[in-house]
Amino acid sequence: MGLISGTIAVDVMGSDQGPLEVIEGVKLALEQYPEISALALVGIQTDIEASLKKCGILGHPKISIIHASEVVEMDDKPTQSLRKKDASMMRALDLVKSGDCAAMLSCGNTGSLMAGATIKLRPMPGIERPALSTVVPSKDHLFILIDAGANPETNPRQLVHNAILGSNHCKVELGIEKPRIGLLTIGTEEGKGTDRIQETHKHLKSLGDLINYTGLIEGFHVFEKGVDVVVCDGFVGNILVKTCESLFHILKDLFIEELTANPLRKFGAILSLGAFKSIKHKFNPDRFGAAPLLGINGIVLKAHGSSNRSGIMNAIHTAQKMLNHDMNEQILSDVAEANKIIKLNEQISSSS
Amino acid sequence: MGLISGTIAVDVMGSDQGPLEVIEGVKLALEQYPEISALALVGIQTDIEASLKKCGILGHPKISIIHASEVVEMDDKPTQSLRKKDASMMRALDLVKSGDCAAMLSCGNTGSLMAGATIKLRPMPGIERPALSTVVPSKDHLFILIDAGANPETNPRQLVHNAILGSNHCKVELGIEKPRIGLLTIGTEEGKGTDRIQETHKHLKSLGDLINYTGLIEGFHVFEKGVDVVVCDGFVGNILVKTCESLFHILKDLFIEELTANPLRKFGAILSLGAFKSIKHKFNPDRFGAAPLLGINGIVLKAHGSSNRSGIMNAIHTAQKMLNHDMNEQILSDVAEANKIIKLNEQISSSS
Repeated sequence: MGLISGTIAVDVMGSDQGPLEVIEGVKLALEQYPEISALALVGIQTDIEASLKKCGILGHPKISIIHASEVVEMDDKPTQSLRKKDASMMRALDLVKSGDCAAMLSCGNTGSLMAGATIKLRPMPGIERPALSTVVPSKDHLFILIDAGANPETNPRQLVHNAILGSNHCKVELGIEKPRIGLLTIGTEEGKGTDRIQETHKHLKSLGDLINYTGLIEGFHVFEKGVDVVVCDGFVGNILVKTCESLFHILKDLFIEELTANPLRKFGAILSLGAFKSIKHKFNPDRFGAAPLLGINGIVLKAHGSSNRSGIMNAIHTAQKMLNHDMNEQILSDVAEANKIIKLNEQISSSS
Repeated sequence: MGLISGTIAVDVMGSDQGPLEVIEGVKLALEQYPEISALALVGIQTDIEASLKKCGILGHPKISIIHASEVVEMDDKPTQSLRKKDASMMRALDLVKSGDCAAMLSCGNTGSLMAGATIKLRPMPGIERPALSTVVPSKDHLFILIDAGANPETNPRQLVHNAILGSNHCKVELGIEKPRIGLLTIGTEEGKGTDRIQETHKHLKSLGDLINYTGLIEGFHVFEKGVDVVVCDGFVGNILVKTCESLFHILKDLFIEELTANPLRKFGAILSLGAFKSIKHKFNPDRFGAAPLLGINGIVLKAHGSSNRSGIMNAIHTAQKMLNHDMNEQILSDVAEANKIIKLNEQISSSS
């Protein structure tokens, strides 16, 4: 296809904000991050060209356009989306599969992206199931939660893989050299929780320098500063992320309602406006790049459906950082190492 | 032992606030709720007498004192607590077991209370595992979440039981005639989520008028107004409740930090103080009685360790409401009915 090595494919069509906002993000990314070698914009060619023109970057030497005639809609089921062979999301995944692109990024439907990526790119050697890893903001730090919903029924081996995937994501995305890894459960004493958690805990403790495992954590610890990566299965993770997001919005609405309940409160709130702006900024999802689907052959990123240009810029930057760090090569080697140790543990426990 | 029928046992020792605050709560409950027939205060006799004297209710005709020489500490493991046979918590459970008391209430260690109650009182006929049911506050409603951590590994039958237990708790505690029941999962389309959730969903749909099942819900729906009872296993429920509690506190701390960051913001915050007080009141756990361990032979309530007098009063009131409504008799009959339907479903699906 003649794309430059290291090209990142951007699905231009899946965003709630429309193609123009995505392409404004593309422009920002190219301005801010000169290390980006090339971008392939995938979607309806005329729409893309019109937006590029509006942004004043039509004909930019680092931009290619790949026409795709269909769009995965937000309410399409994964099975429906997979049948849309010429949808921009599917075409962008195909570009990674064929090796024409090194990474891809979409704001579209999460379920369809996970299904498409898993089926087209397949899990990496040594990995059984991919996991969705996400950056979560807290009071004055960020942390990684993995799995946010790709694999709801997880065995101990897969939970160990989640820990390795999350650790590598954290290194690249948050720049933490030895991320502290916690396994989420319901009681931190040895022997508490489920058998599955106990077995995972045993494996994680045996991994040596492969990851910086700090032990079991409870719900109380998730938003505290004790760990950089919270490891759980996709069932717990998906419920947790969605519930916390909705709690945050409900509390925000409650504050607005209470602070506008009478003129005195309103006046007070205006004086303290800086505080509310600062909190809003801290929890703005556009700050945190995008959520990678990890453990597959290729780099696939899911940006928020409502990402603005700055969110798109950060997502492209995240993809570039993952390429720069050879993240997937590191994961491949860490997983191979971990699988040897897990196998040894299993042999020991079956012979005892 | 000569206690009046319908006596509620109160473990006076387990509270973070000390026996005096518990007994202030006892005094309030007796003043506010004349329908309370009698209370048995369990703990170190001299401590109880001293507190009763301070409150001016020593010799109150509705109060008996049951001496217990030991105390279950907050960091005791369940196995340690069970060995403290003369601990106030264990003695209070014994009073329910022997039939001398109709209900018991403790602010003590949750794990020890669940283990003690399960071992001493045993699950009800038809129920395999007890579940901890808890009232959760949202923006402008309250809802029930069950199970908050008693049974981490739950089969479909046990999840159906949780739905019935939560429905009955909701009727009594929140006074909702036909509580809307939602099953928590990670995608609400038919066929999504785990096999365990799908099977539970099928059973719940077949229960007819037994409960008002509204279907599958996602994390986004937990704090919204769509359901009155959120049903999940004890692993998910415990993590969810603890994580949300900690997120709430972290956001509170962040607000305080931001609102006191400079004199202007501070001044504004003082003017809007009413808004913060109203939010604090909405989420004050002392408003919501106590969390019952449901599905056992007897009424056992866990109050917050830090409950103040008003929290204790509400917890005693909750126990009294459960007795007035014959809640456990209703649960027993609902569970028997549900088990017949589940059995029928299982026969149909095994023969097809």
